[in-house]
Amino acid sequence: MDTPTRQPSPALAALLSILATGTALAAAPSPAYPDADASDPARLRWMAGSPPPPDRLLRFDDGSYFRFPALRWSVSNFRQLMPTVNVSRGLSAPAPLPRALRDDIDDVVFQPMGANRPMSWKESLKANYTDGIVVLHKGRIVYERYFGVLNPQGQHGAMSVTKSFVGTLAAMLVAEGELDPSRRVAGYVPELGSSAFGNATVRQLMDMTTGIRFSEDYADPDAEVWAHAAAGNPLPKAQDYTGPRSYYEFLQTVKPEGRHGEAFHYRTANTDALGWVLARVSGRSVAQLLSERVWSRLGAEQDAYMTVDSTGTPFAGGGLNTGLRDLARFGEMIRNNGFFNGRQVLPAAAVADIRRGGDPAAFTQAGYTLLAGWTYRDMWWVTHNAHGAFAARGVHGQALYIDPKAEMVIARFASHPVAGNAANDPTSLPAYHALARHLMGER
Amino acid sequence: MDTPTRQPSPALAALLSILATGTALAAAPSPAYPDADASDPARLRWMAGSPPPPDRLLRFDDGSYFRFPALRWSVSNFRQLMPTVNVSRGLSAPAPLPRALRDDIDDVVFQPMGANRPMSWKESLKANYTDGIVVLHKGRIVYERYFGVLNPQGQHGAMSVTKSFVGTLAAMLVAEGELDPSRRVAGYVPELGSSAFGNATVRQLMDMTTGIRFSEDYADPDAEVWAHAAAGNPLPKAQDYTGPRSYYEFLQTVKPEGRHGEAFHYRTANTDALGWVLARVSGRSVAQLLSERVWSRLGAEQDAYMTVDSTGTPFAGGGLNTGLRDLARFGEMIRNNGFFNGRQVLPAAAVADIRRGGDPAAFTQAGYTLLAGWTYRDMWWVTHNAHGAFAARGVHGQALYIDPKAEMVIARFASHPVAGNAANDPTSLPAYHALARHLMGER
Repeated sequence: MDTPTRQPSPALAALLSILATGTALAAAPSPAYPDADASDPARLRWMAGSPPPPDRLLRFDDGSYFRFPALRWSVSNFRQLMPTVNVSRGLSAPAPLPRALRDDIDDVVFQPMGANRPMSWKESLKANYTDGIVVLHKGRIVYERYFGVLNPQGQHGAMSVTKSFVGTLAAMLVAEGELDPSRRVAGYVPELGSSAFGNATVRQLMDMTTGIRFSEDYADPDAEVWAHAAAGNPLPKAQDYTGPRSYYEFLQTVKPEGRHGEAFHYRTANTDALGWVLARVSGRSVAQLLSERVWSRLGAEQDAYMTVDSTGTPFAGGGLNTGLRDLARFGEMIRNNGFFNGRQVLPAAAVADIRRGGDPAAFTQAGYTLLAGWTYRDMWWVTHNAHGAFAARGVHGQALYIDPKAEMVIARFASHPVAGNAANDPTSLPAYHALARHLMGER
Repeated sequence: MDTPTRQPSPALAALLSILATGTALAAAPSPAYPDADASDPARLRWMAGSPPPPDRLLRFDDGSYFRFPALRWSVSNFRQLMPTVNVSRGLSAPAPLPRALRDDIDDVVFQPMGANRPMSWKESLKANYTDGIVVLHKGRIVYERYFGVLNPQGQHGAMSVTKSFVGTLAAMLVAEGELDPSRRVAGYVPELGSSAFGNATVRQLMDMTTGIRFSEDYADPDAEVWAHAAAGNPLPKAQDYTGPRSYYEFLQTVKPEGRHGEAFHYRTANTDALGWVLARVSGRSVAQLLSERVWSRLGAEQDAYMTVDSTGTPFAGGGLNTGLRDLARFGEMIRNNGFFNGRQVLPAAAVADIRRGGDPAAFTQAGYTLLAGWTYRDMWWVTHNAHGAFAARGVHGQALYIDPKAEMVIARFASHPVAGNAANDPTSLPAYHALARHLMGER
């Protein structure tokens, strides 16, 4: 940091990690990071004891909770660090996820991107710091593992996987005729009229092709991402703080840069703006809408929750926390074109719109070297590979990967030391595809 | 406040309301308070809108969330205001609570304490600002109502009803031989050795007969209750703050006053100290212990949660939030001497110890004019009436009332404008007893 007076507080810096994008970062973890076993949060006994010893005590306000390896505990315990809002599953019985566990998956072998030697599925889970992973094949659990402090009764931060939930809710309202994707954002949220979002269309928000100034360059103390995080930080502001005090206040300050509709830019602020549109259209917060329209109809086995800013607005760009199997249930519902738990949870047209993908020309301009040929639609990442796979992705390795041809859904929570997914894609994306082929009986 | 420099912050003052005791306060609400309809939190639309308008925005840090009538919203939304820890129900199916609703209960009539005219059961619910109430008779739901922003899928602050959960956990460990009630507190928690708690017995903690200096006089800026709340407040401390920084740190500062074992004094700090003992004995936080030993075995239909201080310690004295029906399930388990959901959830001996009651001579000295003849045992209030009724009680009207002879359990959440239960006892205790007699076919 060049200008200490602008240096964000530790809590702020930590919050920022949640926002981190998947843009090009080091393709492999620095050897300075301890490996998965050495950084195991159960083994390190974070927050264990009464009270925890000082060197195992993690706090929100000093940012200690989000430094690696401590973040490996925190991602499973966000609610203990900050205020949250419930996403109720309702009170009915969970929808069963039948089990048909297979013992041949650990030995599936794949070639990591850029590596000289093959790696086994089992090895990959440690290589990319997996906290929990569930694989569904034809709707049945064929593989399930937990590491560190996560267990089937826990919830884990979904990070930017949250965005895909919000995009799905938007696609749902579009399919139902409640939301017009061609309408200007300011038509729904007049307060955004003088911001860069105002004259963008809802569709441009949904596909992140807005032309907005929103730098996520953490080395730059003037980057907008700092202001976004400061606004959303639920802690009281410092007395000399003069910036926006909530996500909604921040969004009104966003300035234009470039033209709408031309290029894909992965910027968290788009999802928060979309969340605001959804709140206005539905009369419900994103958390309420998710509960009423999806979570309570999905047969989830646990409530989910979202972090909130100091005005109670859920963090649409990255605040969702769920149980791992429930994330898999959501994925299975999407794989089945919205049908799950004996009912059409979402309109099939909404899922079809996601799977169709976005504008390839717009995506190419974002320069994701590891994701050649992909597009972005309704806040989902669409591979356009031979299997028609598509995914929800969040920093530090969160993933919901859906392979329609292989009838496979993978839900994964992780706590990789490097935020950007470019650091774990080399050991996860080829593994997913190899497993898909294995489950299809190919080799 | 006489000394402005010692005046607690708004957030602190608000937290204090959670701690308020049931000692003598005005026996009826001041006419200055709006009535139940006028203060209905759904009608007032607290935190509704995107964003909520400024006059409907409730915040933790300025204390606005806990001023009446806003507190009527907040008691159903604590997790949105502060960090919390989950009390998992596990993943199995809820234990059914059969329904046998009766339409004759609203018309049950009783004589409020100190009133000239009778009141109906239905009238009483508004008179004491009920947010939700469930009545079980012989294990079946015979009556269930929700008001304001509470609903069956919501959780509500149990306030000091929390204490009875903690006392029950202690009685359980005593019955199992894991906790010796005659042992000195310092034997379990050496850090309390130089505090007033150190040479008290665990039994004295459990029955609140310790001799400790702990004033809950809010008009006195030097009252210990301010220091307790400041220590437990999860927000960052002010730079000039020099006091204890967690519940555990506070407990070590408590000084002696009077002798242990002589008189009952209802003081929240005893429960926090007991929580510390339980954590040391079990190797689990109170929240974990409650989940593993009770909540996950009870067939609860929702997770519960507890508020935590900045070191992750659950607030044993008042931090539990539950669904209303789950509170009723817990009560039904206690009524059945620990048996519920097809299993012995708690040792029958633990429940017997609660029902036996405490020392009448010790209780008398506390001077509860409305509770003549009662005692306090294992952090439960025991009426010693002809029905053998006993209760868990929390400020603003939270109650779990168990009448063994009538085979009745009442779970009630409320948001009475006056913290102390002396304000709502006149319209609730006689109503409970009248309903018990009604259900028994008397009248």
